[in-house]
Amino acid sequence: MKNLISCEQLSKQDLKELFDLADVVRANPKKYSNALDGKVVTTLFFEPSTRTRLSFETAIERLGGKLISTENARENSSSTKGEILEDTISVVSGYSDAIVMRHSFNDAAERAARVSNIPIINAGSGKGEHPTQSLLDAYTIRNKKGRLDNLKIAILGDLVNGRTIHSLIKLFGLYENIEFYALSKENLALPEKYIKIIEDTGNKYYRCYSFDDIPKDVDIMYHTRIQAERSDEDLGKEQFIINKEVLDKFSDNTLVMHPLPRVDEISTDIDNDKRAIYFEQAHNGMWVRMALLLEVLE
Amino acid sequence: MKNLISCEQLSKQDLKELFDLADVVRANPKKYSNALDGKVVTTLFFEPSTRTRLSFETAIERLGGKLISTENARENSSSTKGEILEDTISVVSGYSDAIVMRHSFNDAAERAARVSNIPIINAGSGKGEHPTQSLLDAYTIRNKKGRLDNLKIAILGDLVNGRTIHSLIKLFGLYENIEFYALSKENLALPEKYIKIIEDTGNKYYRCYSFDDIPKDVDIMYHTRIQAERSDEDLGKEQFIINKEVLDKFSDNTLVMHPLPRVDEISTDIDNDKRAIYFEQAHNGMWVRMALLLEVLE
Amino acid sequence: MKNLISCEQLSKQDLKELFDLADVVRANPKKYSNALDGKVVTTLFFEPSTRTRLSFETAIERLGGKLISTENARENSSSTKGEILEDTISVVSGYSDAIVMRHSFNDAAERAARVSNIPIINAGSGKGEHPTQSLLDAYTIRNKKGRLDNLKIAILGDLVNGRTIHSLIKLFGLYENIEFYALSKENLALPEKYIKIIEDTGNKYYRCYSFDDIPKDVDIMYHTRIQAERSDEDLGKEQFIINKEVLDKFSDNTLVMHPLPRVDEISTDIDNDKRAIYFEQAHNGMWVRMALLLEVLE
Repeated sequence: MKNLISCEQLSKQDLKELFDLADVVRANPKKYSNALDGKVVTTLFFEPSTRTRLSFETAIERLGGKLISTENARENSSSTKGEILEDTISVVSGYSDAIVMRHSFNDAAERAARVSNIPIINAGSGKGEHPTQSLLDAYTIRNKKGRLDNLKIAILGDLVNGRTIHSLIKLFGLYENIEFYALSKENLALPEKYIKIIEDTGNKYYRCYSFDDIPKDVDIMYHTRIQAERSDEDLGKEQFIINKEVLDKFSDNTLVMHPLPRVDEISTDIDNDKRAIYFEQAHNGMWVRMALLLEVLE
Repeated sequence: MKNLISCEQLSKQDLKELFDLADVVRANPKKYSNALDGKVVTTLFFEPSTRTRLSFETAIERLGGKLISTENARENSSSTKGEILEDTISVVSGYSDAIVMRHSFNDAAERAARVSNIPIINAGSGKGEHPTQSLLDAYTIRNKKGRLDNLKIAILGDLVNGRTIHSLIKLFGLYENIEFYALSKENLALPEKYIKIIEDTGNKYYRCYSFDDIPKDVDIMYHTRIQAERSDEDLGKEQFIINKEVLDKFSDNTLVMHPLPRVDEISTDIDNDKRAIYFEQAHNGMWVRMALLLEVLE
Repeated sequence: MKNLISCEQLSKQDLKELFDLADVVRANPKKYSNALDGKVVTTLFFEPSTRTRLSFETAIERLGGKLISTENARENSSSTKGEILEDTISVVSGYSDAIVMRHSFNDAAERAARVSNIPIINAGSGKGEHPTQSLLDAYTIRNKKGRLDNLKIAILGDLVNGRTIHSLIKLFGLYENIEFYALSKENLALPEKYIKIIEDTGNKYYRCYSFDDIPKDVDIMYHTRIQAERSDEDLGKEQFIINKEVLDKFSDNTLVMHPLPRVDEISTDIDNDKRAIYFEQAHNGMWVRMALLLEVLE
């Protein structure tokens, strides 16, 4: 693996190896505390981030790599003087051993990879890909459920703008017998394009209109925030909120996930329910990113 | 000590141990250069800071800890997407071994500590607490005067909004025979609440109207900046400026302190006077913060 | 060398030693990976930067130094509360072993050096000096041409506001038999002051009005961006663009340099031409800055 631009470049075997490595690192992180000795990794964030940047940076540090960080490259870099992304990358790739980047352009990571002679890891490209989010989502499901086939997954929230949902659909195209239950407001329903991907990969799509349409034994309820900042229209507020009352209608094995940040689509009254695993999901980001950095840089 | 939220949680004995440790670290910093080996500390600054952030970060690095830094968490984090502070902390506490945070909410550190499973160190909460400033102030006085009892301390400047003054008053409640001489403009006089704290803890409060009301042998003159940004009203300019002429009316043992940044309340014409110890005071911040990190993390 | 404020403080011998050291470090970087063990270097950037900050920070990390970074000191430091530069420096110089700084004031680095008891390295002062840029430019020319005397150098672009051009002219005053060919729009022609410096140091100045006026065997064509942000007037667009057609009129040994960021004064259609060395030039910044840090801190 030289770059990680999109989840679509990964095979089922790639994922298995990556997740197995994440398990190994997690079981004994000290063993890897010098694994990136002498390597410099630069994080270039042209858009705000908490969890992705901080978990990547912690991953770099915990592996003994050297970290060069830019938390606001949009305003504090030469892009303010009109520099094109390719030039920024050409320069930074001469200092560093890998670049972790987030940018508002949908094709930013591909453009960067085209000119870079060091690995590019995509930490989010506009409305496009955010592959490490999908990786940590799948890793979390594997860890909690013990499998990535034969799953019932409800997807909720902003199914139009939520890149994590789109990536998840593509990634689960690698696995068999997945049933997707989509519950969202009318204006945020899953676009045809993604319904087609679900069906083309042999999985199943069910449109839901209330929580009652989701099977009681659904394995995962994956909720997402309405991404007001990615749309010019007023997208309105979430109607389908997961709270204690809603969650108690579902099985003991129904896990609630969310890429975070949440606004109000998941009530804090379930934060201490053992089925609410969104913080654990976020924490898994560090282990998956450690494994990824090891694969890319070793 | 698990968290440092407020100075009020510390006993006289806690302070003694902390300051003794700061002395030991300062005498032989190399001995501690791997003390935080393998620990990751995240600094989350939602408000601007020079000295607090940089001295904490240097303290972390000088102890061999790994540093993850956010200099402008307000604009460059998910709080821009509406994430509540508790969620940010819940996530970061899964990556890191301690969090040093500054935030505009008065109760930010307490809220953070409530959800965090790693230590929270308060680096300033709105108009509320800024405990490490008080610690370095007291440490500086102990170092220069050899004692924390039996002191005459003049407090000047913005006695309404200056959280360092308020914290100092509370902290000296632990010590005996402290006389506070308060000199400020009418609109910035010390609020009743703090006069009561001084008197309830057995110390003395004297209101002053000019430098002449302050005893010539006052031990400390502690000046503060008018915090225009914390008030909607126009607070006006400082009338009581410490300059060479003023300082020369006081004893050779009168020390001038200031939490910095200063604007014009202390004239630069005394910067080279040996009684002007505000830069030394700032530098002490690093040693006190090293000692604090050791106590919290070891 | 205690500080690096201006190139004018450096002799020919200083430059030779610095560049020789840069060559040695580049040939065997691992040998220097602990050279700054235990040293803390703070980067204080009050103005945006990509290459200068990131290459300095990588240099610090690759030498085993500890890095404290501020990517936007203008907005995220106490300067927002009215603190003067001297106070910020007085404080930071108590935490750190050296400061690398960029600031909008022309005399910022001198002012900082006056109050600092640790080395100050100027990473750009307003319209004034940007000495490490000149160092990496000269180092690049020495590496590619094998000499710093007997050169024909075309200077293009914004000859009024381009501090890299001005510093280059001064620096080449140390060397013999340099011919400068200046090509720019009328409103951006080299000011008299710099023509005088060229002539006073025994070098030659030729004003050009088109690419045809530059000798075909010119050694270096050094282009620069029109610095709109440093002028209140509208400076207009570049008329003299180096593209494939232009470059092909020149010799195989004519090298194209640029301090970057470029806007459109060099066409991307020559990026893969071996004579286009602006990215290599930028990468050299890391080696020169490593050598400089070694000289300043060891």
